Amino acid sequence: MKTLIQHGTIINSDDTLKTDVLVENGKIIAVGENLNATNAKTVDASGKYILPGAIDAHTHLEMPFNGTVSADSYFAGTRAAACGGVTTVFDFAIQRKGMSIQDIYQERNALCKPQACVDYAFHVALTDLTDAVLDEFEDAVKAGLVSYKLFMVYKKDGLMMNDADIYRALLRSNETGALISVHAENPDLIDYYTEKFLKSGKTSAWYHYLSRPEFVEAEADKRAIHWAKSANAPLYIVHLANAEGMKAVEQAVTEGYSIYAETCPQYLHFTRDVYKREDGRNFVCSPPMKGQSSQDALWEGIRKGFIKTVATDHCPFTSEQKDWGKEDFTKIPNGCMGIENLYPYMLSEANKRRLSFNRVVELCSKNPATIFGCTEKGAILPGKDADIILYDPTINFTITNDKMHSDCDYTIWEGTELKGYITDTYSRGRLVFKNGKFLGEAGWGKFLKRTKRKS
Amino acid sequence: MKTLIQHGTIINSDDTLKTDVLVENGKIIAVGENLNATNAKTVDASGKYILPGAIDAHTHLEMPFNGTVSADSYFAGTRAAACGGVTTVFDFAIQRKGMSIQDIYQERNALCKPQACVDYAFHVALTDLTDAVLDEFEDAVKAGLVSYKLFMVYKKDGLMMNDADIYRALLRSNETGALISVHAENPDLIDYYTEKFLKSGKTSAWYHYLSRPEFVEAEADKRAIHWAKSANAPLYIVHLANAEGMKAVEQAVTEGYSIYAETCPQYLHFTRDVYKREDGRNFVCSPPMKGQSSQDALWEGIRKGFIKTVATDHCPFTSEQKDWGKEDFTKIPNGCMGIENLYPYMLSEANKRRLSFNRVVELCSKNPATIFGCTEKGAILPGKDADIILYDPTINFTITNDKMHSDCDYTIWEGTELKGYITDTYSRGRLVFKNGKFLGEAGWGKFLKRTKRKS
Amino acid sequence: MKTLIQHGTIINSDDTLKTDVLVENGKIIAVGENLNATNAKTVDASGKYILPGAIDAHTHLEMPFNGTVSADSYFAGTRAAACGGVTTVFDFAIQRKGMSIQDIYQERNALCKPQACVDYAFHVALTDLTDAVLDEFEDAVKAGLVSYKLFMVYKKDGLMMNDADIYRALLRSNETGALISVHAENPDLIDYYTEKFLKSGKTSAWYHYLSRPEFVEAEADKRAIHWAKSANAPLYIVHLANAEGMKAVEQAVTEGYSIYAETCPQYLHFTRDVYKREDGRNFVCSPPMKGQSSQDALWEGIRKGFIKTVATDHCPFTSEQKDWGKEDFTKIPNGCMGIENLYPYMLSEANKRRLSFNRVVELCSKNPATIFGCTEKGAILPGKDADIILYDPTINFTITNDKMHSDCDYTIWEGTELKGYITDTYSRGRLVFKNGKFLGEAGWGKFLKRTKRKS
Amino acid sequence: MKTLIQHGTIINSDDTLKTDVLVENGKIIAVGENLNATNAKTVDASGKYILPGAIDAHTHLEMPFNGTVSADSYFAGTRAAACGGVTTVFDFAIQRKGMSIQDIYQERNALCKPQACVDYAFHVALTDLTDAVLDEFEDAVKAGLVSYKLFMVYKKDGLMMNDADIYRALLRSNETGALISVHAENPDLIDYYTEKFLKSGKTSAWYHYLSRPEFVEAEADKRAIHWAKSANAPLYIVHLANAEGMKAVEQAVTEGYSIYAETCPQYLHFTRDVYKREDGRNFVCSPPMKGQSSQDALWEGIRKGFIKTVATDHCPFTSEQKDWGKEDFTKIPNGCMGIENLYPYMLSEANKRRLSFNRVVELCSKNPATIFGCTEKGAILPGKDADIILYDPTINFTITNDKMHSDCDYTIWEGTELKGYITDTYSRGRLVFKNGKFLGEAGWGKFLKRTKRKS
Repeated sequence: MKTLIQHGTIINSDDTLKTDVLVENGKIIAVGENLNATNAKTVDASGKYILPGAIDAHTHLEMPFNGTVSADSYFAGTRAAACGGVTTVFDFAIQRKGMSIQDIYQERNALCKPQACVDYAFHVALTDLTDAVLDEFEDAVKAGLVSYKLFMVYKKDGLMMNDADIYRALLRSNETGALISVHAENPDLIDYYTEKFLKSGKTSAWYHYLSRPEFVEAEADKRAIHWAKSANAPLYIVHLANAEGMKAVEQAVTEGYSIYAETCPQYLHFTRDVYKREDGRNFVCSPPMKGQSSQDALWEGIRKGFIKTVATDHCPFTSEQKDWGKEDFTKIPNGCMGIENLYPYMLSEANKRRLSFNRVVELCSKNPATIFGCTEKGAILPGKDADIILYDPTINFTITNDKMHSDCDYTIWEGTELKGYITDTYSRGRLVFKNGKFLGEAGWGKFLKRTKRKS
Repeated sequence: MKTLIQHGTIINSDDTLKTDVLVENGKIIAVGENLNATNAKTVDASGKYILPGAIDAHTHLEMPFNGTVSADSYFAGTRAAACGGVTTVFDFAIQRKGMSIQDIYQERNALCKPQACVDYAFHVALTDLTDAVLDEFEDAVKAGLVSYKLFMVYKKDGLMMNDADIYRALLRSNETGALISVHAENPDLIDYYTEKFLKSGKTSAWYHYLSRPEFVEAEADKRAIHWAKSANAPLYIVHLANAEGMKAVEQAVTEGYSIYAETCPQYLHFTRDVYKREDGRNFVCSPPMKGQSSQDALWEGIRKGFIKTVATDHCPFTSEQKDWGKEDFTKIPNGCMGIENLYPYMLSEANKRRLSFNRVVELCSKNPATIFGCTEKGAILPGKDADIILYDPTINFTITNDKMHSDCDYTIWEGTELKGYITDTYSRGRLVFKNGKFLGEAGWGKFLKRTKRKS
Repeated sequence: MKTLIQHGTIINSDDTLKTDVLVENGKIIAVGENLNATNAKTVDASGKYILPGAIDAHTHLEMPFNGTVSADSYFAGTRAAACGGVTTVFDFAIQRKGMSIQDIYQERNALCKPQACVDYAFHVALTDLTDAVLDEFEDAVKAGLVSYKLFMVYKKDGLMMNDADIYRALLRSNETGALISVHAENPDLIDYYTEKFLKSGKTSAWYHYLSRPEFVEAEADKRAIHWAKSANAPLYIVHLANAEGMKAVEQAVTEGYSIYAETCPQYLHFTRDVYKREDGRNFVCSPPMKGQSSQDALWEGIRKGFIKTVATDHCPFTSEQKDWGKEDFTKIPNGCMGIENLYPYMLSEANKRRLSFNRVVELCSKNPATIFGCTEKGAILPGKDADIILYDPTINFTITNDKMHSDCDYTIWEGTELKGYITDTYSRGRLVFKNGKFLGEAGWGKFLKRTKRKS
Repeated sequence: MKTLIQHGTIINSDDTLKTDVLVENGKIIAVGENLNATNAKTVDASGKYILPGAIDAHTHLEMPFNGTVSADSYFAGTRAAACGGVTTVFDFAIQRKGMSIQDIYQERNALCKPQACVDYAFHVALTDLTDAVLDEFEDAVKAGLVSYKLFMVYKKDGLMMNDADIYRALLRSNETGALISVHAENPDLIDYYTEKFLKSGKTSAWYHYLSRPEFVEAEADKRAIHWAKSANAPLYIVHLANAEGMKAVEQAVTEGYSIYAETCPQYLHFTRDVYKREDGRNFVCSPPMKGQSSQDALWEGIRKGFIKTVATDHCPFTSEQKDWGKEDFTKIPNGCMGIENLYPYMLSEANKRRLSFNRVVELCSKNPATIFGCTEKGAILPGKDADIILYDPTINFTITNDKMHSDCDYTIWEGTELKGYITDTYSRGRLVFKNGKFLGEAGWGKFLKRTKRKS
């Protein structure tokens, strides 16, 4: 059975094409005029943009955290993804001491596979970087697990990797074609500030920000870049949120190093001022939102091309969970939602002429596909998976939680006004979202075996 | 009548697709599988790459020069282009005092139109920047003449524009969507050195280089960039050939300015050492080839993305013409050939793994199309002109002048060994070159009315 | 006859010493305690600072200009100098076509010698850089004429030197130990703007600024630095007045090049806003005062050490002369006064804690002495000329023209409030100023035969 | 009793003066001609340079280390100092857990005071940065203990301070006028490499270098600078030995930050190649000598002014002690000698025209005096302590251990040929070294109560 999407405008990262798209067996088989559409179901995309589905390269679904778990199960999270035009989700599979990469993957995949409504992959977050694990890189990369993350923070939680670990991982990534990413903040400063504030009774959400301000993140960005340059290995910095780190990325890239910076919609839209709000704890995530000058620097980084991807760090916690930290910011579960807002928000910014639609597709789909080895994703072109979004630029949409498809009982994006919105999401040719309604099913999503980067 | 190109591999700047291409009425109407090819002629591209035709953004065909004219007529030059995979030629239409833009265009178009074997456009080289000409920018841009060049040299020939001219043109380009390019070398130093060498009997081709060495070019690059930054206007620097200028481009781009650098294959392949050869005068062009460190910097600029296009500055002169300067380098007509070598050379470098094929397509086709407003060129995608190259990566090809299609009696590329070569060139769907033979005709090529850049 | 200055505090660039100074025969012969002061006249400097006399490295006394002459004769100018703590004046001796360096010097010295109240030297401003003049550098340097200036502007006045001239002079300076300085502004842009404004009736002093705004000066700074780097020769940039040029100096110095930047008190104290005043024409000088951000950058350059000297560009014109340009800014004689204000102003800023007193001595005395080869000046140390200033930091002084010793009928510094003021000036041991009164005499000042810089 | 030093040439950092020096009661009371020298002993310095005594800002005398102690007692070390023209020694007083600053000082002073042959001060090395210690800064600074050092390495030895400690110390230094210095190397990488090499039997001295190569030091330099910039506090980096760190210092200083870099003569003279020698272990110190390009960068840093001081890190161990690590580089006591070689080596380099004598005085005497608040040292000027060196530039001197005055049985400087040598050392007016013979005595040296830096 074929589907022919007609009369729309294809927006790829590199080009805009007013032409049709033909889908068969979950694949785009042709783009062009007068396609061979015998027996095809036709879809009228008049007035709409045809976009490749977004790839959210950064989510934490069903993530265990301090005895609880993040509010979106793999089902809920990928349902929300589908409804937000995200057709591929990169979740983090976090190693516990002693686990092999294969174990980490198997455990997490067993959980995710039956629930996933869209395709998915895992970044493996390593917390116990034994020689055995490094040895395993080669096989793991061949098995499609090509991306690894190291935490430069969370010492007390046993997640933190030290500088030698980062350097070893980078060296090994060079041998195997893996890609290393880091969560970059400085642990010593965070611990120092946290303790200091708690001691003096400064416990509101604002002190979450003050315990991890701009320069605390920036230091770790610079340090990670130093190791990457020293190892001459590529590096992906997740959720970059500060101006000085942005500057360091810019400098290293200009020198010719492959430093990929990701930021998140929350850093592009909110500032630290949210932590002064009554519901400030709902915005608590790490790194925290920063000052206006950092937000400006991130947009400037997008404009100049030094930000390579925008992803969400989606990790919602319910009001009840967030309330644990009402009287003590250190008890607030860290994380915000965004998986359903990423693409609509960025496209709305394009629609408001802040950047081009092509650039949004590049940031949210093409670049993560390329960087993380999903060659079957990222564009509306023959041979690619039929992860297709229809977008109506004329719709005015105000985000309210009742329209959202997460399991969380609120959204930090409440009230945000968007210009244009997604009307249809296809996941490998299957319609999974239409006009506000989720039409997908658990178990549809497939694990993506990815290709290693070219040396 | 349709043409279906089957079994090849499409190489666009952004993606590689193993799929078919369907052409009708000079346009690519579809790419994909199982295309509606009733009545189509089929072409078997098994084992071949399907590339968009190159755009040579810098040629001087039939150019008057000191009482003579460059060796390739529009016919010969565009014939050679077709045979080298170049399906679009940007020639320079040079203003004489008092001419309006419309006059400049009309005069040159009248000459070119009946001869052109591939599509063409003109950069208008302004040498008399009156207020009337600046006023005319708006209409000219609307008429598709969107790119203008200013010489920062050739004072004595009356071609040179001063700093205020450059700045005024940049300001005006911002108002109208035009794009300004510059030939950047410092006139005072050139004149000084030239006079000094002549006085002391230093007249060999080597002194052509010594009269315009690295820092003489670099100064003008920096100055042009200064005016562009001051006007906050984009700038295209033609034939960049030195490391220090490359560095200045890099810095300005990193700061967020739109500085587009073009280099030429001769700067990527030869160094100033050619001027010590017996036939050194054949390599005389301006700017001259530079030292190895400049060549390295240009390749590094390509690797980092700070070189945006590669074009030829094709301007051949016959041995007889070149011999005028046998005893005096100032009498050597300036210019080298390359229009038939650009794409094969760059693709051969890709085939030798120096850069990717996609990157070559970006440098030689996609980027010039984008920068200069030829939205119908630059990719193998539905809606684009069917300017299609088939490339066989397994052919070993040694450049010899007898295989070339220029009217010139020698080539500076003689003996260069290429890995892979072009087998077929289609210009808007018409086969104009196959297996070494030119199959096109004068008058086929169309003038391209281009679109102004987006502000 | 000896003089013993007692109980004061010596402020040199490098150190502050609470001790006595013994002077004999115009020289400082000792500093210290319990000096051998038999027959010495004693001076009580209790509560005062003992400073080396300032060197004003940039003046235009008795300068012919468009059929008139600047308002201060050598007598009046050096009288004002003495009263402002300036004990050495570097005036410009401007070449007319065909003159040898020796001629230039002789002519100007004949004028200056009988009038000078303090020591003096000449920068030779070259406007006709023949090979003969370049050849003469060697002898001229030996004769103590070690510094040369080239104008990058004033094309119409026949003063402008082109880029090749600048480069040749720099190369030659490297061979001979001379030092090249430049007046850096871009002539083409100035001419363009000037003509444009005049045409449209924009003739007030404000258009003087608008015809030479920040980027017009900055371009020439960068270009001059480019030639200096290319020649690997030191360069002195006179009257730097813009932020972007400051940045360029900073970058070149950090790279290890000897680029010396001079600024003037008027750029540190006033901004372009003065040109909007009724008496705006009185502030007209070239380069003009710039915006606040440039002023800030200059002070920052002083703080960081990238500004090496502060000098005045003293070139007053009377109200009557300035009035010539009342209706046409191009007719305003260019120049402002400052020779009597330089040291008091800078020391007052030190007294207000903006910078240290040592730093003022470095900028106004030690550095010009070192850079321009006056090894007998610049410090209160044995062997140095007894050019000694006593400064009372407790005096409050408001500048009014009636207290000034220039021949000009107004001062741009009118009303400026200073904290601290000079009470005594000694020129080679002779008291030439005390408590507001000039005590010197014409002809006392000696021509300084200077030492070439060390390679 | 007075001493009059006649006929020599005073070399201060800022000036060279051919004049006499008069000393009385340990102070220079006057410099100049015809001084009041009744009853003075005269010293003929004809043909000699009169220099201020060097300040060795970095020594480890009698330092406990792994159950042994460095080979020079305070007596032996300061004896060697005197014989090398070092008249002030800054030794490190290292905190043990729980000690107050006062305790640290008292303990160390009790040891040093009876032995010191020249003046001395302590940098307090903090290893237990409690709030109590930070509180104590204010009083300690008032008591003249103005400089503090933090180790970024030696985790296992309990010496390492973490990033928060560094930042806290920097903030506190800003409040109190203290100056923080750091030993900058990355601990994680050192530990990783060390363990890795030991495991694989790579135990020669060469692996000492390989376990702490260039980038391992550079990272910590950059990190320390980051904290200093974030705190907007000055920072002194001890024994900088790598090019990339040098670059980072350069950048920060250019941005306007007060980052003071110290290097050591061993880094200026030797490279890592020494570790391949039979006696490589004798050269083991931390950071180790680096490659040639780092040595070049350090000399370039001196040339450009980004290196502020040269000091020794003098910490000799005897052959017997060094032999502990014959089979295992981790057992080699870390440290090299140099206190007697610093000034002669640097002055010899000046004598060979690599830099000026004034610059050597600046690096080895004036700058450490200024940076560390010893206003009574650093110049031959009235009011300064009579720490005076006579230097004969015509002597040829080959360093051999039998001529040295350390207690160590060898010197890494063996065989080094110097041009010029010190003939006399005066410590506060007392002759303590003459023509190769030590003439001083234990207990002569005084503790220097220093002045805090100006904010």
